[in-house]
Amino acid sequence: MPFLAEDEMVERIRGTLGGEFEALGLRDDAAVLAMPEGAGALVVSIDSVVEGIHFDLDLSSVQDVGWKALMSALSDLAAMGARPLGAVVALCLPRLELGHDLAVGVMAGVAEAAAAAGCPVVGGDVSGAGELAVAVTVFGVPEDGRVVVRSGAVAGDWLFVTGPCGGSAAGLRLLRAGVSSGPAVDRHRRPTARLAEGMLAGRSGVHAMIDISDGLALDLHRLADASGIGFELDAVPVAEGATMDEALAGGEDYELLLAVSQGDAPGLAAAFVGAGLERPLPIGEVLPTPARRTLKGRPLDPLGWQHGGVPPTG
Amino acid sequence: MPFLAEDEMVERIRGTLGGEFEALGLRDDAAVLAMPEGAGALVVSIDSVVEGIHFDLDLSSVQDVGWKALMSALSDLAAMGARPLGAVVALCLPRLELGHDLAVGVMAGVAEAAAAAGCPVVGGDVSGAGELAVAVTVFGVPEDGRVVVRSGAVAGDWLFVTGPCGGSAAGLRLLRAGVSSGPAVDRHRRPTARLAEGMLAGRSGVHAMIDISDGLALDLHRLADASGIGFELDAVPVAEGATMDEALAGGEDYELLLAVSQGDAPGLAAAFVGAGLERPLPIGEVLPTPARRTLKGRPLDPLGWQHGGVPPTG
Repeated sequence: MPFLAEDEMVERIRGTLGGEFEALGLRDDAAVLAMPEGAGALVVSIDSVVEGIHFDLDLSSVQDVGWKALMSALSDLAAMGARPLGAVVALCLPRLELGHDLAVGVMAGVAEAAAAAGCPVVGGDVSGAGELAVAVTVFGVPEDGRVVVRSGAVAGDWLFVTGPCGGSAAGLRLLRAGVSSGPAVDRHRRPTARLAEGMLAGRSGVHAMIDISDGLALDLHRLADASGIGFELDAVPVAEGATMDEALAGGEDYELLLAVSQGDAPGLAAAFVGAGLERPLPIGEVLPTPARRTLKGRPLDPLGWQHGGVPPTG
Repeated sequence: MPFLAEDEMVERIRGTLGGEFEALGLRDDAAVLAMPEGAGALVVSIDSVVEGIHFDLDLSSVQDVGWKALMSALSDLAAMGARPLGAVVALCLPRLELGHDLAVGVMAGVAEAAAAAGCPVVGGDVSGAGELAVAVTVFGVPEDGRVVVRSGAVAGDWLFVTGPCGGSAAGLRLLRAGVSSGPAVDRHRRPTARLAEGMLAGRSGVHAMIDISDGLALDLHRLADASGIGFELDAVPVAEGATMDEALAGGEDYELLLAVSQGDAPGLAAAFVGAGLERPLPIGEVLPTPARRTLKGRPLDPLGWQHGGVPPTG
């Protein structure tokens, strides 16, 4: 058939998503979700990925694109220490004949990520477009009534990351070189939002948190800007197969970067280990002077990937 | 400058949106909204508009695009009888040098609509893309704890619309013919989501509701499909300057179509008038037989605009 009309497309996508989706959404103009009792606030983030900017269909499957679109949005909730409640997805679909396969493929990847993260997809929208784009909005509630912001770091805090950095960038480099499998490639194609880590960090009283979506150096500068502080890094945990440059400036790791008081740091580590999570890795210390931002004593620039507003060619 | 990096773009957009935005969002990974006390449910909808599919920048300003993107999303909340709490906006921006002006222009229109509707924009995302696209997610809460669905119409209900139909389609026709002002043109460029009407209809006990986004005939068929009913229309209120075809099949009117018991109809009309809203216009009656769907006794097809999954060329 030349194209699928909107209602038919929605019907097929609903089939991809299974029972939970069926029960909750896409039958009406809007989705309706139960709010947990006593939830005083809603935490919301929107994120979009666009073909040619954020992904290349020669290197990632459409399922990978869907997975990553949801996980990258969920990573923003993780960075606030929020518990996800649900997601809605807008698909912009090119290519007349392929529209259906693309939609089902992307939504299959979204559904896999939704199941892995425990975040149901409750609604969506489909539209034509020149290229494939996926916009995802996720919403959640503060864990134990508290959200963690970027701006709370204070001098003397210790800085941690939830895992080594640069794996996704290394995976992208390997994919471009023709390597199609391995841990780094998996890391690039199927990153995981650190939701459990974010909620536990929030409950453990961390002062500030951000997710590493655009590179450790750039996101650390963002946290430092928001908090009005400086930092000295003394260790950068580099993912296996990655370079130091990739660890500092590679995007899409989706590890969390957090600042915690020295007194709370041991309890944080114990809580992570007790919950079966990887022990947070210490990377340095918060300094009082905003202008002092160093790695082993040398100035560290905000290297990283600024993809918004930066078309790939021109 | 060749392009604006993401953080700088976000900073400028924040300036466009003013104080409320400043206070609430875009400083962190996610926005945090206060939930009204006792809100047991969350109502969510995502909607996207794409250049060349939903709008033509030769006929609409970028401010109009932003206005309409938010209002069309809010119309889905109106159709559920929900009260809006906030919105998040993802912008996909083409054109290297124009990216900044486009972003500020679109967000100025979004901000105007947000002020008119009383729905603050609390977060967003910017990305490069091949063409301008705007995805908007809106959040709300059920008014008085109740949402209105499409599926509740029963035989004997009367059908009403909140205003005459076809105005937006007439406006688009006039714009294409070179007419650049007038009520129909305004209606096309700056539609209004019927939020107050939707909330009042919900409180007045209507059985079913849908917004007319893709044409009265198509959206009425959708409501009839969801409710498992038929209908007989005996009157179609045609907007000034519009044709009967435009009233039946023209999209983007964003009036509400509702089904209410005959006994509740007088109270509904009185409540609307009492609240200073236009009196709902009767258009027909719900029939028990799903296969009977008629306009003045003759079969009425689901004419309208199915834009999802239908690229404009191919």
